[in-house]
Amino acid sequence: MIDLNADLGEGFGVWRLGDDTALLDLVTSANVACGFHAGDPLTIRATCEAAVARGVAIGAQVSYRDLAGFGRREMDVPPRELRAEILYQLAAVDGIARTVGGRVSYVKPHGALYNRAVHDVEQAEALLQAVAEYPASAPLPVLTLSNSVIHDIAARYGTPTIIEFFADRAYTPYGTLASRREAGSVLHDPAEVAARAVRMATHGTVLTTTGSELQLAARSFCVHGDTPNAVALAQAVRTALTDAGTTIGRFA
Amino acid sequence: MIDLNADLGEGFGVWRLGDDTALLDLVTSANVACGFHAGDPLTIRATCEAAVARGVAIGAQVSYRDLAGFGRREMDVPPRELRAEILYQLAAVDGIARTVGGRVSYVKPHGALYNRAVHDVEQAEALLQAVAEYPASAPLPVLTLSNSVIHDIAARYGTPTIIEFFADRAYTPYGTLASRREAGSVLHDPAEVAARAVRMATHGTVLTTTGSELQLAARSFCVHGDTPNAVALAQAVRTALTDAGTTIGRFA
Amino acid sequence: MIDLNADLGEGFGVWRLGDDTALLDLVTSANVACGFHAGDPLTIRATCEAAVARGVAIGAQVSYRDLAGFGRREMDVPPRELRAEILYQLAAVDGIARTVGGRVSYVKPHGALYNRAVHDVEQAEALLQAVAEYPASAPLPVLTLSNSVIHDIAARYGTPTIIEFFADRAYTPYGTLASRREAGSVLHDPAEVAARAVRMATHGTVLTTTGSELQLAARSFCVHGDTPNAVALAQAVRTALTDAGTTIGRFA
Amino acid sequence: MIDLNADLGEGFGVWRLGDDTALLDLVTSANVACGFHAGDPLTIRATCEAAVARGVAIGAQVSYRDLAGFGRREMDVPPRELRAEILYQLAAVDGIARTVGGRVSYVKPHGALYNRAVHDVEQAEALLQAVAEYPASAPLPVLTLSNSVIHDIAARYGTPTIIEFFADRAYTPYGTLASRREAGSVLHDPAEVAARAVRMATHGTVLTTTGSELQLAARSFCVHGDTPNAVALAQAVRTALTDAGTTIGRFA
Repeated sequence: MIDLNADLGEGFGVWRLGDDTALLDLVTSANVACGFHAGDPLTIRATCEAAVARGVAIGAQVSYRDLAGFGRREMDVPPRELRAEILYQLAAVDGIARTVGGRVSYVKPHGALYNRAVHDVEQAEALLQAVAEYPASAPLPVLTLSNSVIHDIAARYGTPTIIEFFADRAYTPYGTLASRREAGSVLHDPAEVAARAVRMATHGTVLTTTGSELQLAARSFCVHGDTPNAVALAQAVRTALTDAGTTIGRFA
Repeated sequence: MIDLNADLGEGFGVWRLGDDTALLDLVTSANVACGFHAGDPLTIRATCEAAVARGVAIGAQVSYRDLAGFGRREMDVPPRELRAEILYQLAAVDGIARTVGGRVSYVKPHGALYNRAVHDVEQAEALLQAVAEYPASAPLPVLTLSNSVIHDIAARYGTPTIIEFFADRAYTPYGTLASRREAGSVLHDPAEVAARAVRMATHGTVLTTTGSELQLAARSFCVHGDTPNAVALAQAVRTALTDAGTTIGRFA
Repeated sequence: MIDLNADLGEGFGVWRLGDDTALLDLVTSANVACGFHAGDPLTIRATCEAAVARGVAIGAQVSYRDLAGFGRREMDVPPRELRAEILYQLAAVDGIARTVGGRVSYVKPHGALYNRAVHDVEQAEALLQAVAEYPASAPLPVLTLSNSVIHDIAARYGTPTIIEFFADRAYTPYGTLASRREAGSVLHDPAEVAARAVRMATHGTVLTTTGSELQLAARSFCVHGDTPNAVALAQAVRTALTDAGTTIGRFA
Repeated sequence: MIDLNADLGEGFGVWRLGDDTALLDLVTSANVACGFHAGDPLTIRATCEAAVARGVAIGAQVSYRDLAGFGRREMDVPPRELRAEILYQLAAVDGIARTVGGRVSYVKPHGALYNRAVHDVEQAEALLQAVAEYPASAPLPVLTLSNSVIHDIAARYGTPTIIEFFADRAYTPYGTLASRREAGSVLHDPAEVAARAVRMATHGTVLTTTGSELQLAARSFCVHGDTPNAVALAQAVRTALTDAGTTIGRFA
């Protein structure tokens, strides 16, 4: 069974990003922006309500505090600060989710924090401490890459991890994502993205930027919400997976 | 029994405001800034930890989103937005409080929101909706003035209200606070402030700006944390109340 | 001769609002967002460059500090603060404009500040002080409504004013704009909006919400950039005006 | 002749940092915070006015956009964005300075940007581009460390550089500042700091963390404004320099 997750609620104030309603009809897990890189309180609430209405799992998409950079600029946040900032975001979204009949059932770091926490032990530890100490009814799993220091750290805290796969992002042979600043790092062709998703679902592999084959035990596939044809991509992935006999369902 | 509350955790990043540690040793309720007018996540956490260690009640000091104006600039926030903004702040601080062994046990609006919610039915309703819908273990009381539209609205939502008294603020005959922009609106003499506190605790009255006597059923006295001699004032009030035979204890 | 102005550069970070490039080909004056309600430095620079390339006049679209509310929430900013905030925005955009070969040649307050400065003498005075004291090569005119306290205050400071007309907004009989919260306050039909523009250009009048006829000496018409069919509206207005024999040209 | 510079205007809204008035009486150059790590418009204006009144040079203390971290958290800002962000800050403060009778006469990057621009060629280039393209009456010099990539880049842009010395900061043998996170990286003893200043003024050298002697052609000494005994330190440095026969005067 494969989970489909997407970044949602990434507007702010008057600004919108992506077609949340259409994506919510396709995914099984919603990574809800918490207000630090995107997401104002009203948007968070509306996104949680829409997720609850569809049985979509709610995740806290925690980020650096960087609205101007959409959380994509790596920041050297001291671990104690980062831990408190993550806890704040997680608590805010979980509180809103519970108010509308849901709850945060997993955590996904966003953007530059996602990439940095894959290899930066200090920041990854800060992330895990915040997730582990938050009083949830059950340990909240963290989504991360296969090749990530988070797995070992999470194990120490009793926090589950979920390996996710980015069907529309180029992978290096080391299992990291190619930088967004590099040409070809984001794939836009629905057929190609869908084919990569099916290959992962059925064979557990992806072709990297050097052409090598990389094996991943991915339980969740990420479909992006902020690319122009995000909905078409998500629809293509979902349809291709279903056609290939894969069951789509939330892990959380 | 009289509760003593103070605004705490009102720093932001590198900036501090007031001597939180000294005040926490004197009050029974801490109005913790939630990040919208002041209060970063690390400060919120440290303030909650310090409150829990002393048995001081934690309140969510919710505000307009206005760091630059410290929440003192009245804002015409549409009710739906305001409701979500208050819920976000309440959830964030409650989640952090629960993480460190406490919980938010009351709500106190801050600054311009405090003053406006006293008479603006739309904003007061938005505040009460947010407080009432948040899934706390028990209804969270709201601190407000005696002469406030909040009391009636709160009754409709099953939310308790606590009348508070500002020993160091001038009162109009209508039971509202004189504007901070007016001379004499904030009292600085510890002896005078303490005498006003004792008068309220023993007789339930305060002398207004016109010299008239105003009766208030106040259960909590607010001592400010951001005036230069805040600690001296709070100490004077506490000592005077104790000397007058009043028991100091949290209402929450 | 009629000037056409539009709000431009109203994105922030990753978020965009409206089709700036298309609008810049239609208008003669660009109200550039200064960073307080919208507009990050890179967007400001790109917008100024695009305006300079087309000979479009650059205006500083100054606002309350309110990204989350897009400057549409009225704020009770003390005059000294407001004056400094407006000066900061004006200076930032003018400096960027001069760097790319242009300059700020007028000022247009945005959103809630625009509406409040029409009747609030204190805020209007703060606005005019900032505009008048800024060392521009020539006094910077201010765009405002016909029925506005700004005209008299500006006269005292030697600041010119330009009356503008909103072809796509409903007018009250008092010459103020109907609130955006009211149904019908924003017109969306290009033909209707264009007809209103032609009527104003040729007869100097507009029909108000009560059906009465209101006379305005408008020298600039505002076409909005943030409505879904903004470009179609602007195109319709420009074509209709030209067809009616009106010359389109910048006032600044 | 030695210039004394200090970071000033580093409050924000209700929050203050350091005793600006006392420091302005001691220094010859004021690094005015521009609003990105600290400094609101009213504070910028007041600081510029106070500097003009004392004949103190005004510098733009440009920073990453990071109020919550006071600009001390390294950020991976793409060069084009950084260049525009620096230009925005420089223009805003220069415009305010010119409004009150002064002008920005130099640029000093703040905190993490200061440290990163010393070795990061991309960010240093972005900084220099912004400074060089800004239409000032004369090229604006940039303050930096002796051992900095800025010198070569600045030469290409025709921008002067000024080497500055931090009398109260520990130096590594490589001429970089020891990290604030390391114990002993900030010196607090006025006598020690003053002695280091005199040694630099008279011999052009400083003792590094390993005891080695480092030679610097420093023309400006930085005295910090945000340490508790900042004024005492600045006074000690100024007195010791004067006693040692050094003339104190602005470079700009």
